[in-house]
Amino acid sequence: MKIGVLLSGCGVFDGSEIQEAVSVLIALDELGAEALCLAPDIQQHHVMNHLKGEEMDPPRNVLTESARIARGNIHSLAEIKSGDLDGLVIPGGFGAAKNLCTWAFDGPEADIDRQVATLIQELVTQHKPIAALCVAPVVVAKALEATGQKVSMTLGTTEGKSPYDISGFHGGIERIGATAVNCELGDIVLDETHRIITSPCYMMEARPAAILQGVRKACAQLVEWGG
Amino acid sequence: MKIGVLLSGCGVFDGSEIQEAVSVLIALDELGAEALCLAPDIQQHHVMNHLKGEEMDPPRNVLTESARIARGNIHSLAEIKSGDLDGLVIPGGFGAAKNLCTWAFDGPEADIDRQVATLIQELVTQHKPIAALCVAPVVVAKALEATGQKVSMTLGTTEGKSPYDISGFHGGIERIGATAVNCELGDIVLDETHRIITSPCYMMEARPAAILQGVRKACAQLVEWGG
Repeated sequence: MKIGVLLSGCGVFDGSEIQEAVSVLIALDELGAEALCLAPDIQQHHVMNHLKGEEMDPPRNVLTESARIARGNIHSLAEIKSGDLDGLVIPGGFGAAKNLCTWAFDGPEADIDRQVATLIQELVTQHKPIAALCVAPVVVAKALEATGQKVSMTLGTTEGKSPYDISGFHGGIERIGATAVNCELGDIVLDETHRIITSPCYMMEARPAAILQGVRKACAQLVEWGG
Repeated sequence: MKIGVLLSGCGVFDGSEIQEAVSVLIALDELGAEALCLAPDIQQHHVMNHLKGEEMDPPRNVLTESARIARGNIHSLAEIKSGDLDGLVIPGGFGAAKNLCTWAFDGPEADIDRQVATLIQELVTQHKPIAALCVAPVVVAKALEATGQKVSMTLGTTEGKSPYDISGFHGGIERIGATAVNCELGDIVLDETHRIITSPCYMMEARPAAILQGVRKACAQLVEWGG
């Protein structure tokens, strides 16, 4: 079974959340699935100094930086078609909401990368499962907005501890046609009709072992649906 | 229990091996130990494009790039003393052999970062455990060369599949006073006298789940000795 892992850079503040991305690679390997890392060959929205929390120069490329997580074993999104994959995982990190789409800046009016949108739409049409972690459900919501498909998904729970405004995110995805569901760290929300799996991960206050637990649960369901 | 995690950048070819570093954070969290990420505030030896395998410009800083793995929660090595820690883990990746010391270029005649050497020497004197993963045992060997302490350690096994010349590495550490021991992926070598734990990780052909297994074993021993 070949599962795409769609990366958006390397580092939580301008790319893929590294701990979530590695947890996905571990979980898929434990499940006997082959991870096929991919990323768009585009410039990052910006580069963040992760020590100081400030923007820095010069620009970096999403595919080139994502290759760090994948040890160089990665494909440009342009080379991979939905038919090559049995399912897809999108780890979180601000890169999902800055590079794959512009939700971090534009909210529900965000633009989405055309190749990312096409891949997601085609996989849903082919009944292949997608797991979107952390903030990545906004990417799926944006991709499916144009199709009118009403998908249940989570970005966390408004009743737990989070560094982010979960109700703001939930209101945002509902405005573009999704249904928001509260979900605790380590748990998953399933949309069986569209085979979409979502899990809060670092949208909630969390530590690395809890991230792996939630990712494992999401990947186990993905592999079950992808088989 | 506070365990230092000494990073050397962010990416296998010029910094810390990301999957090993994240596995350490997961394993320490599972064991109830607090991970305290640290890195020297120095320029990387060079920057590698992980997609093309070529050097690229401009320079990057080891501490700033390591902060990506740690989600910004990291300390400059200069701020942390051996007394602050109950033990230390050094993940692998070429950064250990390029930025913490220069083994990748100079072999046994390598220079070692003075702060790194001092931290390792003091921890050994204080009978606090150190786990060195993948290629990181060369850093420990260099740090202890001057002390005359004869430490048993591994960089893998000459009898398994590896992308590297394990017997060359083993010969190298023996030339500076260490004792090299063959060890399979997923297993660990213990030097009880000096409380040094080593495990091959990506020195051998490996996949992410096996990396986590080996790291877990090393960290469990570390926490047992650090308690």
